[in-house]
Amino acid sequence: MNTEVIDTLISPEGRLDILSKAEVAKLLDTSQGGLYSIFRNCSLAVLNCGNALDDGKELLERYKSFDISIIQRERGIKLDIKGAPANAFVDGKMIKGIHEHLFAVLRDVIYVNDEINGNPKFDLTTTEGVTDSVFHILRNAGVMRPITHPNLVVCWGGHSISRQEYDYSKKVGYELGLRGLDICTGCGPGAMKGPMKGAAVAHSKQRISTGRYLGITEPGIIAAESPNPIVNDLVIMPDIEKRLEAFVRTGHGIVVFPGGAGTAEEILYVLGILLHPDNAAQPFPLIFTGPESAKDYFIQIDQFIGETLGPEAQKRYKIIVNDPQLVAQEMHAGIKAVREFRKERSDAYYFNWTLKIDHEFQMPFAPTHENMRNLHLHKNQERHLLAANLRRAFSGVVAGNVKDQGIRAIEQYGRFQIHGDRSIMEPMDALLASFVAQHRMKLPGKKYHPCYEIIK
Amino acid sequence: MNTEVIDTLISPEGRLDILSKAEVAKLLDTSQGGLYSIFRNCSLAVLNCGNALDDGKELLERYKSFDISIIQRERGIKLDIKGAPANAFVDGKMIKGIHEHLFAVLRDVIYVNDEINGNPKFDLTTTEGVTDSVFHILRNAGVMRPITHPNLVVCWGGHSISRQEYDYSKKVGYELGLRGLDICTGCGPGAMKGPMKGAAVAHSKQRISTGRYLGITEPGIIAAESPNPIVNDLVIMPDIEKRLEAFVRTGHGIVVFPGGAGTAEEILYVLGILLHPDNAAQPFPLIFTGPESAKDYFIQIDQFIGETLGPEAQKRYKIIVNDPQLVAQEMHAGIKAVREFRKERSDAYYFNWTLKIDHEFQMPFAPTHENMRNLHLHKNQERHLLAANLRRAFSGVVAGNVKDQGIRAIEQYGRFQIHGDRSIMEPMDALLASFVAQHRMKLPGKKYHPCYEIIK
Amino acid sequence: MNTEVIDTLISPEGRLDILSKAEVAKLLDTSQGGLYSIFRNCSLAVLNCGNALDDGKELLERYKSFDISIIQRERGIKLDIKGAPANAFVDGKMIKGIHEHLFAVLRDVIYVNDEINGNPKFDLTTTEGVTDSVFHILRNAGVMRPITHPNLVVCWGGHSISRQEYDYSKKVGYELGLRGLDICTGCGPGAMKGPMKGAAVAHSKQRISTGRYLGITEPGIIAAESPNPIVNDLVIMPDIEKRLEAFVRTGHGIVVFPGGAGTAEEILYVLGILLHPDNAAQPFPLIFTGPESAKDYFIQIDQFIGETLGPEAQKRYKIIVNDPQLVAQEMHAGIKAVREFRKERSDAYYFNWTLKIDHEFQMPFAPTHENMRNLHLHKNQERHLLAANLRRAFSGVVAGNVKDQGIRAIEQYGRFQIHGDRSIMEPMDALLASFVAQHRMKLPGKKYHPCYEIIK
Amino acid sequence: MNTEVIDTLISPEGRLDILSKAEVAKLLDTSQGGLYSIFRNCSLAVLNCGNALDDGKELLERYKSFDISIIQRERGIKLDIKGAPANAFVDGKMIKGIHEHLFAVLRDVIYVNDEINGNPKFDLTTTEGVTDSVFHILRNAGVMRPITHPNLVVCWGGHSISRQEYDYSKKVGYELGLRGLDICTGCGPGAMKGPMKGAAVAHSKQRISTGRYLGITEPGIIAAESPNPIVNDLVIMPDIEKRLEAFVRTGHGIVVFPGGAGTAEEILYVLGILLHPDNAAQPFPLIFTGPESAKDYFIQIDQFIGETLGPEAQKRYKIIVNDPQLVAQEMHAGIKAVREFRKERSDAYYFNWTLKIDHEFQMPFAPTHENMRNLHLHKNQERHLLAANLRRAFSGVVAGNVKDQGIRAIEQYGRFQIHGDRSIMEPMDALLASFVAQHRMKLPGKKYHPCYEIIK
Repeated sequence: MNTEVIDTLISPEGRLDILSKAEVAKLLDTSQGGLYSIFRNCSLAVLNCGNALDDGKELLERYKSFDISIIQRERGIKLDIKGAPANAFVDGKMIKGIHEHLFAVLRDVIYVNDEINGNPKFDLTTTEGVTDSVFHILRNAGVMRPITHPNLVVCWGGHSISRQEYDYSKKVGYELGLRGLDICTGCGPGAMKGPMKGAAVAHSKQRISTGRYLGITEPGIIAAESPNPIVNDLVIMPDIEKRLEAFVRTGHGIVVFPGGAGTAEEILYVLGILLHPDNAAQPFPLIFTGPESAKDYFIQIDQFIGETLGPEAQKRYKIIVNDPQLVAQEMHAGIKAVREFRKERSDAYYFNWTLKIDHEFQMPFAPTHENMRNLHLHKNQERHLLAANLRRAFSGVVAGNVKDQGIRAIEQYGRFQIHGDRSIMEPMDALLASFVAQHRMKLPGKKYHPCYEIIK
Repeated sequence: MNTEVIDTLISPEGRLDILSKAEVAKLLDTSQGGLYSIFRNCSLAVLNCGNALDDGKELLERYKSFDISIIQRERGIKLDIKGAPANAFVDGKMIKGIHEHLFAVLRDVIYVNDEINGNPKFDLTTTEGVTDSVFHILRNAGVMRPITHPNLVVCWGGHSISRQEYDYSKKVGYELGLRGLDICTGCGPGAMKGPMKGAAVAHSKQRISTGRYLGITEPGIIAAESPNPIVNDLVIMPDIEKRLEAFVRTGHGIVVFPGGAGTAEEILYVLGILLHPDNAAQPFPLIFTGPESAKDYFIQIDQFIGETLGPEAQKRYKIIVNDPQLVAQEMHAGIKAVREFRKERSDAYYFNWTLKIDHEFQMPFAPTHENMRNLHLHKNQERHLLAANLRRAFSGVVAGNVKDQGIRAIEQYGRFQIHGDRSIMEPMDALLASFVAQHRMKLPGKKYHPCYEIIK
Repeated sequence: MNTEVIDTLISPEGRLDILSKAEVAKLLDTSQGGLYSIFRNCSLAVLNCGNALDDGKELLERYKSFDISIIQRERGIKLDIKGAPANAFVDGKMIKGIHEHLFAVLRDVIYVNDEINGNPKFDLTTTEGVTDSVFHILRNAGVMRPITHPNLVVCWGGHSISRQEYDYSKKVGYELGLRGLDICTGCGPGAMKGPMKGAAVAHSKQRISTGRYLGITEPGIIAAESPNPIVNDLVIMPDIEKRLEAFVRTGHGIVVFPGGAGTAEEILYVLGILLHPDNAAQPFPLIFTGPESAKDYFIQIDQFIGETLGPEAQKRYKIIVNDPQLVAQEMHAGIKAVREFRKERSDAYYFNWTLKIDHEFQMPFAPTHENMRNLHLHKNQERHLLAANLRRAFSGVVAGNVKDQGIRAIEQYGRFQIHGDRSIMEPMDALLASFVAQHRMKLPGKKYHPCYEIIK
Repeated sequence: MNTEVIDTLISPEGRLDILSKAEVAKLLDTSQGGLYSIFRNCSLAVLNCGNALDDGKELLERYKSFDISIIQRERGIKLDIKGAPANAFVDGKMIKGIHEHLFAVLRDVIYVNDEINGNPKFDLTTTEGVTDSVFHILRNAGVMRPITHPNLVVCWGGHSISRQEYDYSKKVGYELGLRGLDICTGCGPGAMKGPMKGAAVAHSKQRISTGRYLGITEPGIIAAESPNPIVNDLVIMPDIEKRLEAFVRTGHGIVVFPGGAGTAEEILYVLGILLHPDNAAQPFPLIFTGPESAKDYFIQIDQFIGETLGPEAQKRYKIIVNDPQLVAQEMHAGIKAVREFRKERSDAYYFNWTLKIDHEFQMPFAPTHENMRNLHLHKNQERHLLAANLRRAFSGVVAGNVKDQGIRAIEQYGRFQIHGDRSIMEPMDALLASFVAQHRMKLPGKKYHPCYEIIK
């Protein structure tokens, strides 16, 4: 593996190219303060995009000498970078897409943080306040544009999938792209890269030069799932919950490919929201799909949902096996319905204001050993609240698998202990075991040591 | 005169087309509060652009039934307009340029106000804070762009000038435009419209499709000097002082045509700044020019400056009579020097950060009868401070001549009384008298009743 | 008058920037052959655009040393220019619009000539062949574009008109421009420049950056009516007749301002065509307009048409006095009808293929003394043929007034003698006499010596 | 395999959207005449792009009912298509890129043919005449643009290559694209598609939205190597020889991947030209490259060239094994030298006028059994003429392998007989045998029956 490094100095483009003196001073200040390590680590992840690596801890250890700092110039700023992975450069010059991503990191991790935190305009203890901050971050990133037709398809799925599944995700992206649809994913390899690549080829065949490949990530996951430079709009949301909210409010439909714990987390999140009574009338195309070989996988997922959230939840998605064209046709039709719905209510196309998201789904969940142990995984609660708690359980497993902090916590305190009703614990155990068996927890080539223990 | 009116409903474009729910609520709130009348009056001024009228009070009285309000929609806002001057419409549809200007008013009067006032980021009691707010307003208006070459020429001069002088200002604008230079003025008729028209023709001959015609105004003056729709970037600064700061920080050179009290105010402002010792090295092309018939006018101005601010001040400008081509060549060369200067200091091209502006020039001056009476117009002070006070005296005269508030104050309390050293009062009296004699105080066809009295 | 001259070397842009070796050789060859003087004189006219001068002979004599030649480079050509009017340059650099016009001359006078003459594809002895060549020249000039909406208004009228009429033509152009209409004229000053200037201002207010100002001229007239650089599409047709055909096939409607013999020629041309039975159903908005002071002028024209071509002809136009807004509204509505008509027949919007133009109107008419004497000006012929002959008579008068060749012929052989039915000669004499009285034959400041004699 | 078909009616875009009546008539005429079958077959090939198939004869037999004809409309034309492969459509609508390619076929096969054949301007019996026609076809296709930097890399290589070689060609394309270089190939699968796909991804990472993927083909080969819709500039040259000339005059450097007889033909063509004494000074980067597994292949090629054309020829290329980055760096540097060379001679960047191409290389070679038998394959001739004859031999083999006509001739008359000096025949036999052994003659899965016999 190439671990050669390069030093460089780069100028901003876009949002940060015109800053006031006060803003520059604030940036310097913030970047050197408590946020420095997040800023540094996200920057390193972006620079590392070419290398297959899904271990946040390993990345940081490999490039220990990496350093990034803001330099003040009379007219603005520059980024001073030391020890960057050489892969990010071509003959000594940084790849343009990575250059853009670096400034997206600065913008989202430092600049927006200054604007939102401590600003009385954003009351993050309320549902409205959180939604407002999500909106603000996305708008500041230039992601929202007045558009004539909704066309953004969110693609979820695992970072560690088989070649066959990867190729299938490319084909689905291709069929979506042929129909003029854009792609949004969580960045990273596997099911998050395939659809973008497929769509890019299709857009080029349809002579669509304005195709969007939107990546929405967050500081904890970016190291394990660094954005491919094809991503031409990158947003780093402050935490998982805001990232998930960004997906469901900006996307016009969701395709779910096979994946592991992270994908399960995403499925539970969106179903939890769609189960909320206020959202009963919301059209929201949601399709689970994969190649023939993934058929069993989706049967398991479907069973798990049926056993925990019930048939009401099962009605909100379709499962399509091995038919990329049908997936694209269904999504195309579903998004048309979304358009009609928004038009009638004169809601914006670029942000789904009318979707109700319960505060339970917005509050950041810290996957400490204690919080994991105390999750309320019982059937005696409303279905969408159970979904919220199940979502947290899988979120913890993701952290223990691939995030720097989570890995360290597991190393120190042992596995997470997950309690709950037997009628929930059993299907959950089965599902997780199947993820392990199918190598969906980590990139192939590494033995997986579970970070959790199901207490039935 | 056409006073026909039209009702309409229009949607935003640009900066305000993507608003959060909280922002919409705030806009509604603010627009219905204390700022309503400023918002309404500026909107009316913008809609009235086709009619020659330099009396803010008269305008308001003519369209008494005019009303504008913000309407909330799920996805954003609309403006509901009643009783708008029919001139702003073509076959019932609002002229695009005026449509844009209306939203510039909303943006600058309401939206920016919400962002700046009461925001601890902007400490308006300090020099840095004021400059920061000026920068912020201009950036929010999309006026600042990273540019490769400085090319913005500010043109100052009277709104009431002779046909000959107007034609001359067009010719100067034409010669500037032929050399690829853009124009910034204070909006309004006369010397503020001529250069833009001339430059527009020249840009079209040079096939420059990106020509900028930037208008910078403020709520007090906009009614008397409403922006021509050719203005394709309009900014409404909160007060005269910030407007003047915007001119000198964004412009790369200034051309002054003949004018009245307002032009004298502008000249004193820029000279006061350039006389500041910290600005001694700043290149700043400043040219006074007019046709042959204006020769005496500039002799008077030059004399007045010589007698009050001294030869040091006289060195900062050139007077060119009847030679538009030479004006353009000198300005072109001067701006080249500006570019070299900024490049060396790596200062921005779009905002002159290194120009020192004393707080005296930033503090808003309210031209009440008392403040006018107490102006410190004595020679026993630094030259740049005397310039600041002289600037205020002329500023008061402008208010008494054309602004709604000023006109009402004069009607109620009689003329302003201006005291000071005889060696200052005498040239000042002479200068103002010549403005009156030359009909530079008001548009022709109206008798001028002086709003001031010089106490020698 | 500035007769300073400049030498320069310029590179092609557009159509001629990629030439084969054979084409370059051909260009060189042709440009040095019989076409040289036409090429040189048209180039000089284009370079002389800033100077008011309507005497082709005078222009050529003033710049006797002017020379232009093609230089061959490995990759293409350059134009070597000696003794060009200094007005065409800014600080030594040619104005972009003029630069473009020069290559339009090369393209149309030399290049197209090579393509059309002697090419068996174009049989100029047939109606279809002439129309085909007109189409080919216009397409080669990049003038025809697949457009979604017809919007091209041809404006005709005199080059020598009063300030009042000129201002009126600007106002009409302004009102047309506000409605998104583009302008086509014959180039030159007066009524050919006013509408373009007005439309340019209106387009800028409506933020239309794609406004077209199409000038269609021919080698005989270009010296007297050189194109203003605002013209952003210039075509030099080989002769008057093809120029007139270009007007009526590309324009979607025609506005006629007051003018002299040339305007009368144009009116007779379009009426002659519209009188053709095959064109009875063609919608073709045709409006004669001018300020109050031009009222009598249009009464005279209308009378002349009534007396010679009869009431059928009078039905094909509207006369609107002093109402620019109404002119624009009528034209706007008329063009809408044109659109419907073409749509139904799936005719092109950019070229009126279905308009029948009799070969009589296509055959070049050489205004020799003999041809003028033998014109068939009698009532015993179809109306559209009489119109054709009357058109020729006025065409001869234009040549004798302003064209180099015509002026020389008159100097040598005396006035043209025009014979015909008394019932035609009398109104014709009256009309021409009124043109003389109203100074419509030549630019003001010169005494007019008639170049014709009416033999009643 | 999907052999579903669709009928449709499509409108032109680009070059053919504005046609005169005469041109439409000519098109109709020509398309129904002798050129109909070429027009039809090329159109079918373009529509068939999604299917892997390298047998021109098989394609035609599979879609026997396919029909295409021009329909005349008042304003132009439409294409009426019956029985088109369904793969070319998405939900019933033709893919945009294929739509463009169809009109490229019409333009090049019918329209240009009308312009060139029988036109005395193009004397195809001379070197200049042929080069002129090549230039004309390319310009008419809009392929040549005045460009600031040469950046077009021609990629040659087999249509039937291993997955490994295909992936390698993608990597080379990727590295070229990262350096801002564009790709030109002969259309078709394999080494002609890989580099474009790789470059497209790299362009997107570098945010280059103007990347060019130029495909140059000819009627005989297009059925076997149909253009991928990623190709955004497609030209169909009239014959192989003009196609080869188009490659070497528009490309700024050439990369050769492993391939079969066609690739050998191309190598011999370019070496034959570069061996011409007049081209001794021409910089022309020429790189043979492939993955490790292709090492032996290039050793064989290099040996064959050494034994037939000698060490002089071997000096004109570099062989780089398994290093895509080095290939791109060398090509980048080589093209820089090309730029310097052209600049010095003020030769065009878009067409290499100064390259000497002997008429021997321009004359179309018809691979009949007789012509193949009579090839002059002896060492007693100048090296560049031997190269010309060897080129013809391989050209015949290509025809016998994949072209409709060639396949039929072989079926009818048996194998081609190739005679010559033993010192040439032996290495040739060895080379061809190795192509067969490596499955480079036909797509895998089919048994290869040689179409030639080497007579030693």
